[in-house]
Amino acid sequence: MTESEADAAAVPASVGDTAASAPSGLSRRGLLGLAIGGGVAGLAIGTGAGLAGGVALGRARESADAQSAFDFFGAHQAGITTPVQDHLHFAAFDMMPRSDRDDLKSLLQDWTYAASRMTQGLEVSATGAVGGPAEQPPEDTGEALGLPAAGLTITFGFGPGLFENADGDRYGIAAQRPATLEKLPPFLGDDLDPELSNGDLCIQACADDPQVAVHAIRNLSRIAFGRARLRWSQLGFGKTSRTTSAQATPRNLFGFKDGTANILADDAAALEDHVWVAESDEPAWMAGGSYLVARKIAMLIETWDRVRLAEQHSIIGRDKGAGAPLSGGGEFTAPDFSGTAIDANSHVRLAHPEQNDGIRILRRGYNYVDGNNNLGRLDAGLFFLSYQRDPSQFVSLQRRLSTDVLNEYIRHVGSGIWAVPAGAKPGSYVGAELFD
Amino acid sequence: MTESEADAAAVPASVGDTAASAPSGLSRRGLLGLAIGGGVAGLAIGTGAGLAGGVALGRARESADAQSAFDFFGAHQAGITTPVQDHLHFAAFDMMPRSDRDDLKSLLQDWTYAASRMTQGLEVSATGAVGGPAEQPPEDTGEALGLPAAGLTITFGFGPGLFENADGDRYGIAAQRPATLEKLPPFLGDDLDPELSNGDLCIQACADDPQVAVHAIRNLSRIAFGRARLRWSQLGFGKTSRTTSAQATPRNLFGFKDGTANILADDAAALEDHVWVAESDEPAWMAGGSYLVARKIAMLIETWDRVRLAEQHSIIGRDKGAGAPLSGGGEFTAPDFSGTAIDANSHVRLAHPEQNDGIRILRRGYNYVDGNNNLGRLDAGLFFLSYQRDPSQFVSLQRRLSTDVLNEYIRHVGSGIWAVPAGAKPGSYVGAELFD
Repeated sequence: MTESEADAAAVPASVGDTAASAPSGLSRRGLLGLAIGGGVAGLAIGTGAGLAGGVALGRARESADAQSAFDFFGAHQAGITTPVQDHLHFAAFDMMPRSDRDDLKSLLQDWTYAASRMTQGLEVSATGAVGGPAEQPPEDTGEALGLPAAGLTITFGFGPGLFENADGDRYGIAAQRPATLEKLPPFLGDDLDPELSNGDLCIQACADDPQVAVHAIRNLSRIAFGRARLRWSQLGFGKTSRTTSAQATPRNLFGFKDGTANILADDAAALEDHVWVAESDEPAWMAGGSYLVARKIAMLIETWDRVRLAEQHSIIGRDKGAGAPLSGGGEFTAPDFSGTAIDANSHVRLAHPEQNDGIRILRRGYNYVDGNNNLGRLDAGLFFLSYQRDPSQFVSLQRRLSTDVLNEYIRHVGSGIWAVPAGAKPGSYVGAELFD
Repeated sequence: MTESEADAAAVPASVGDTAASAPSGLSRRGLLGLAIGGGVAGLAIGTGAGLAGGVALGRARESADAQSAFDFFGAHQAGITTPVQDHLHFAAFDMMPRSDRDDLKSLLQDWTYAASRMTQGLEVSATGAVGGPAEQPPEDTGEALGLPAAGLTITFGFGPGLFENADGDRYGIAAQRPATLEKLPPFLGDDLDPELSNGDLCIQACADDPQVAVHAIRNLSRIAFGRARLRWSQLGFGKTSRTTSAQATPRNLFGFKDGTANILADDAAALEDHVWVAESDEPAWMAGGSYLVARKIAMLIETWDRVRLAEQHSIIGRDKGAGAPLSGGGEFTAPDFSGTAIDANSHVRLAHPEQNDGIRILRRGYNYVDGNNNLGRLDAGLFFLSYQRDPSQFVSLQRRLSTDVLNEYIRHVGSGIWAVPAGAKPGSYVGAELFD
């Protein structure tokens, strides 16, 4: 990441104005060039144009990394159909108890500004880690200085608690709450830890370099200071699903290929049917968005590792080597459920669209290892992420999996659901439609 | 990773013989082709030759990945001067309470066999994840199937507790204990968690793909079943030091370049003086080895992020952007401590060889993020790893850092020291000299 004077000049002059009011020296509300307080939409659009220019400038300067930089602005948020990157840092946030509507709006604006820069390989602000006054703390934490964009995508979501909580309609958006956005129902085998579940807001940062993903979450957490607080977070690696046909199907920690039948980015019809919220869906502000479900699924890998190969095959319903369905063929041959080759309670049968009224979801999970427990067993598993047009798709599939023999080897320990709005328009911010 | 019949044929016929005695189906003691029980050195060397042939065969088959595969056998263990890879999975093990000398020897032999294969992009054994009998659990856990060697190195170390513990000289090696191999003394600012410290054995697995490093530790843990148990483990990323001049100096989570003055792999004189145990050093079995110190150093990053840039510079003694010493020049200009530009208690001054009677160490640390705490702060820091000819080098440097102003922003929460023997000779196993 580098900064030039040209880029610095593209940043609104008002940045400095609000620095004094930012507790840790960051000019937060000023980052988008907005005056403190909301409702100045005209100003937002005006300075937004400048912002977009600055970002474009930044990318042009880093042409060597152009291939690994994805647009932040667009019809949909990046990080959903984007080719799955190698690393994940996922974070859930809670709004601070006394925060108000303006806090939420300004936070989304500041996050948008920072995300639009970081995804282009730039620092979190124009002065960044080393370009600001020596007598102030740097605006960027600096550990990504010199690193390219590394395919970074930053995807924002709104949890049910944001719309209405114990404090009531704190942000004036209760009426905008999607009817289906509610805490997921309990499922058989749930062993959920509240400290690994839910959150008013979420950020999914994916990149091909973990330092870039961590830098993004760290700086966005910092920007949230006083308005929202990190509730829980999760690092992941070795993507366990693919979103383009050019990507090889990766393996999960049970050693099986995972995501063979995933919805791919070039399947426009499937995306329209199963992933993107349509214009005709309710509520209108979610058009072009999606719903994100996260499940932290601990795998009892030491137990699994003692299962006979034949039984592993039977449990999954696929061959471990090639990933072919047990009914025959290759990895991409459609499973044939008419015979007995694929067990009635195998994972592939229960999860397959053909056995679920055609329900499909777009999966984007990662493996995780969080050290080990006192018994010397790795604390490892799958951090499952899926995007769907309606939360009921996940709920229906997960209920169907209640008889999955695989359940003996997994525990769902974390859970969350978020409404992921459409992409931010250039000059605007993510979720702006929610406040219109 | 792939298996061919030719490779399977290179594995000693005795593998099958001991499969029945292996609790989870792994033919452990048979992996090296040794009869159960120790002391059959002739046999070990004889079958070892077959093993080396099998490994060579494997590598030839995977020429596409040759560039990222490092020899396991050699004068020194790989993973010390090897160009620092992007990812780390470090694990400390304790021997099981009732284990004996033969258990320890057979474990080191089995680990050697498995490591010599995995570092070449092969599965843990010839039958691996899918090549064995369907009625047995697979010998390899399978999640690295299809992945290249990814620069994997696996480095083994022996902790003080291996030589003598509450049970006495259980392994008959107390007399071989290096005089300087003892638990590190307490240092100012230590806040050590016993569950993140020490261990009879350690394994450092480094790779450019975290899934490959995790696969290695997982499978080596599995092979240890009944003989040693995982005590603690740590994942790391974004290497914070370099070992070749071709590598750019990476940044730690304080945003500063780290490792500018590190010992590099091509500096033979410095390695001889500061890293490798010499033939003339005691004990003789450690010749060609080194001593590894691990320190898990939590960084109070939210506190650090509120420090003025000028003060950050002063604390480190270097410029945050270029990494140049505050006395002037560029990153690689030698710091000039004669003036007042570099603070007396700055990190660079206290740690510099010029201020420490010329003492140098080879650092190989990684950044880590283990989620966050209840206050919404990232649980993050530096997993410090250093190699030195004698533990006293680290002890001396760490004592010197007692007045380091940086201490206000860090906490040492984990610690360990291990004797890292020379590389295994082809046909032998790592640490064999300890038992001769």
